Amino acid sequence: MEHSVSIHNHIQLVAGEITEELKRSLAQFDGAPSKLIEAMEYSLTAGGKRLRPYLVLAAAYAVNADEAMVRKAIAPACAVEFIHTYSLIHDDLPAMDNDDLRRGKPTNHKVFGDAMAILAGDALLTAAFGFITALVKQGQVDAAVGIEIIDELSRYAGALGMVGGQVADMQGEQGITSIEQLEYIHQHKTSDLVVFSVKAGARIAGASEYQLQQLEQYGRNIGMAFQIQDDILDIIGDEQKLGKPVHSDINEQKVTYPFLIGLEESKELVAKLTEEAKAAVMDADLAYTDQLLELADYLVHREY
Amino acid sequence: MEHSVSIHNHIQLVAGEITEELKRSLAQFDGAPSKLIEAMEYSLTAGGKRLRPYLVLAAAYAVNADEAMVRKAIAPACAVEFIHTYSLIHDDLPAMDNDDLRRGKPTNHKVFGDAMAILAGDALLTAAFGFITALVKQGQVDAAVGIEIIDELSRYAGALGMVGGQVADMQGEQGITSIEQLEYIHQHKTSDLVVFSVKAGARIAGASEYQLQQLEQYGRNIGMAFQIQDDILDIIGDEQKLGKPVHSDINEQKVTYPFLIGLEESKELVAKLTEEAKAAVMDADLAYTDQLLELADYLVHREY
Repeated sequence: MEHSVSIHNHIQLVAGEITEELKRSLAQFDGAPSKLIEAMEYSLTAGGKRLRPYLVLAAAYAVNADEAMVRKAIAPACAVEFIHTYSLIHDDLPAMDNDDLRRGKPTNHKVFGDAMAILAGDALLTAAFGFITALVKQGQVDAAVGIEIIDELSRYAGALGMVGGQVADMQGEQGITSIEQLEYIHQHKTSDLVVFSVKAGARIAGASEYQLQQLEQYGRNIGMAFQIQDDILDIIGDEQKLGKPVHSDINEQKVTYPFLIGLEESKELVAKLTEEAKAAVMDADLAYTDQLLELADYLVHREY
Repeated sequence: MEHSVSIHNHIQLVAGEITEELKRSLAQFDGAPSKLIEAMEYSLTAGGKRLRPYLVLAAAYAVNADEAMVRKAIAPACAVEFIHTYSLIHDDLPAMDNDDLRRGKPTNHKVFGDAMAILAGDALLTAAFGFITALVKQGQVDAAVGIEIIDELSRYAGALGMVGGQVADMQGEQGITSIEQLEYIHQHKTSDLVVFSVKAGARIAGASEYQLQQLEQYGRNIGMAFQIQDDILDIIGDEQKLGKPVHSDINEQKVTYPFLIGLEESKELVAKLTEEAKAAVMDADLAYTDQLLELADYLVHREY
């Protein structure tokens, strides 16, 4: 597992850098109410694998293996983590999933109250777009590229994307019957932001339309594989490693891939999606493919 | 009052057109969960004076009095109304102001539930940015102009702007003591989005930096005047015309301008802010100033 250790370490290294960058980025809000910034920072720095920012940077490097260029991709990497973080804060609210803990820490509303949690989420969401405009205004990226990235952020994170997926998930709790519904939920709730991540990184690095298409395919597949693997780990995972109780889906009578198509077929589906993701990358005429290929495997072999 | 009747009618005319445009704009979400779109539409079409969209269009026309050009400003006009609407939905939530009624109709969460109201707000906020990117992608506005507008939307609507104002307002309910705190709240909670509106419209119409500065001054002043006038109407207004009970600020022990500096001085302040707003417009080398000047007066003389 030498291979898997190395990508694991690389992900952790990048996660640490992203966390520092996220903290630094909060300086832009100097002058805003300090409690609001505290609430934003609390959830931004509460841990997490930072897989979406990693994907932004890895996709940029895949298109143009140049360190200076990859630094520009830190802006969309922060943007997507702001979006992901806001979605977790709102998701945890009493009105939604009503979770008291996330990654072993009290959720945002438990610390700052429901009202502040709603507003901290709103502020993170609104600020995400500012990362991209700042990059353009600094002259680091063409305005037209910035517009494309913002356009996709608005779409993939909104009613047709992540928010739509959340709504479908919520409605699904009243009884999902078909694999199509479950696919819709996973695709939009999880996969859309993954697709945004790889495309945004690739755009920063000057990807061609063909490369963007291939990377979209890659992102779509690993996003789905990631979510199905999550369902699988809820059944066969190790509570210690996962950092959360297993069998919660079963206890909450949540309809999952293993529930609908069986555990073995779910595993096969994850493997198939992963192979297709890797094939899309290998056929994309990229400058560097190692990180994207290793990440695809890592997501399947992860135990947490 | 011939003068004031005419602007009143014009505002109503534009409000009707904006409402139609907002409805039409929802077609872009075809494919999203229908209940989500329903929740978004419910609040988008729940009435309101549409003063922010009016300001976007009036500022565009002031810079370049050309009807075809003003049509382009409909995109930022919709964007700002999406932002305003999301802020009202989240504001009304039980965790925030816990309001059951808005403009005589049940609030969003009373109809669709708290979770859906949170998500509908998130979707509206996320979609606001897409109006500007669509305009650029249609080739109607330069990408650089689109980036500036999005940059300001992210700032004026976020932690340093409207959301920051909401937080300060919430914290103020535990006891505001200074006029500076109240000014901070009004400036960010209300005035920032007004400033965004006039600047966005002006940018679409190709305003110079000088014109933008003057219009920012105008927006800042009428935004503050509007909010102080709101405080005044809560004391001396007519419940029938206002469509909401008066004296609610007093009953809720809310600290307002009249409370802090007295009713007469508040009225004088509104008059002074209005005159300064009009002076800024008159000195701005604009193509057409009637709408902006009349609107400034209208906001003071309104009875609702």
